[in-house]
Amino acid sequence: MSVVRLVIEYDGTQYVGWQIQPNGLAVQQVVEDALARICGVRHRLVSSGRTDAGVHARGMVAHFVTDKLLPMRAYRDGVNRHLPADIAVRDAALACDDFHARYSARSKWYRYSIYRAAVRSPMACRFSWQVRGRLDVQAMREAAELFVGRHDFSAFRASGCAARTTVRELFSVDLVEEDPLLQVDVRGEGFLRNMVRIMVGTLVEVGLGSRSPCEIEDMLSAGGRDRAGVTAPPQGLCLMAVDYAGQDVFPGQKCLDMSETFR
Amino acid sequence: MSVVRLVIEYDGTQYVGWQIQPNGLAVQQVVEDALARICGVRHRLVSSGRTDAGVHARGMVAHFVTDKLLPMRAYRDGVNRHLPADIAVRDAALACDDFHARYSARSKWYRYSIYRAAVRSPMACRFSWQVRGRLDVQAMREAAELFVGRHDFSAFRASGCAARTTVRELFSVDLVEEDPLLQVDVRGEGFLRNMVRIMVGTLVEVGLGSRSPCEIEDMLSAGGRDRAGVTAPPQGLCLMAVDYAGQDVFPGQKCLDMSETFR
Repeated sequence: MSVVRLVIEYDGTQYVGWQIQPNGLAVQQVVEDALARICGVRHRLVSSGRTDAGVHARGMVAHFVTDKLLPMRAYRDGVNRHLPADIAVRDAALACDDFHARYSARSKWYRYSIYRAAVRSPMACRFSWQVRGRLDVQAMREAAELFVGRHDFSAFRASGCAARTTVRELFSVDLVEEDPLLQVDVRGEGFLRNMVRIMVGTLVEVGLGSRSPCEIEDMLSAGGRDRAGVTAPPQGLCLMAVDYAGQDVFPGQKCLDMSETFR
Repeated sequence: MSVVRLVIEYDGTQYVGWQIQPNGLAVQQVVEDALARICGVRHRLVSSGRTDAGVHARGMVAHFVTDKLLPMRAYRDGVNRHLPADIAVRDAALACDDFHARYSARSKWYRYSIYRAAVRSPMACRFSWQVRGRLDVQAMREAAELFVGRHDFSAFRASGCAARTTVRELFSVDLVEEDPLLQVDVRGEGFLRNMVRIMVGTLVEVGLGSRSPCEIEDMLSAGGRDRAGVTAPPQGLCLMAVDYAGQDVFPGQKCLDMSETFR
């Protein structure tokens, strides 16, 4: 048996999210269908995690197990010929036997894009959240720093989130200004449902002056969802990359070029 | 009678182009419909020019004449409430009586986005042309310089182009690398149909090594459409801004902030 690891990019606008569910078309379903056209049999994809409806990915990672291995180009170029324009396999590689897209992951990088302008932008709106008021980026940076480290993020998860533990470690929360965009880059070992979007919604409330940065500490210690800010809309969020610390790819196979994935 | 000048942004993916035509929905039609909802009467928009099916605009300029002037915010925020997500009025201003969106224009800026990668990108493909091979950007720059100035561009127009004269002056053709994107910024007094897309198609052939930069001079002097390169696909092209040298806006009115339009 061989383990194959795929890196998948998608524009999530038209999908109910990554994971297969009864209420609409999921990215996972579309990729599994295309893979079945190439393999002749159906493989179940195991992903590094889920993304919600309307959320995008540049570097979603998923693996599948097969006893009939094809050349890696078939899993990339062959599968891509059967995928719609809004989904693509960016990389396919043979992984170590014990590789698991979810359990082997060391960290994930999410990017949230805020579009700062008085008037909405048809070209930017597909991949960003428009915020009209002036944002105090310095105050947002102060607040963002308070998220870094190991905390109980129970105030920053969706009400339907079923995770058993709510403690997560964040490695960094960086605000990058590319005027008129403001990018929020969040890196951490793992995330609760809607966690990045609630963090960003809270940071924007800080930026607009309706909350002070120091309130973040209260939210982290008190833990009620009603204490934190709004949930930022899905179209601004993108899963940029999942990091496996280079342990995932079978020796001799092309290693994932992270700089390419991170673009 | 008053002249109102609009700056309009659109994602052209779903439209047959700017201009109203029988074979599908045009951006002009959608904006005129929304404007009629606000004004109570229908106004005909006169634009700085056309854009083809699938081409985008950040700063299309159009004017209309009215004898019942509303506050400028109605023409921007009011009209935007009746426009779909892929079209927006970015600015509305009272113009001088003799302003004409087409005849008063001094120059236009088009940007063509080339996405350089072996694998297609679902997030980039809506607004760029994917080119797989390695591009020699230096050779492309040499070729681009030869377009600058006053030339007969008859080799660089669509077969259906009805322009009476084919001589146009280009002020600059700049290649900007924002890896993995390569942007081609073309500024000129006016353009023939498909001119920028044929120029870009030709530049890409130079970049791939299938043509040499010096062939551009032959194309410009000989003039047959078959001498130039392929027509680059529409989705990479965007009309960024139209320049009126600050002569268009009525004194006392907010002047168009070109830096905002140019972003």
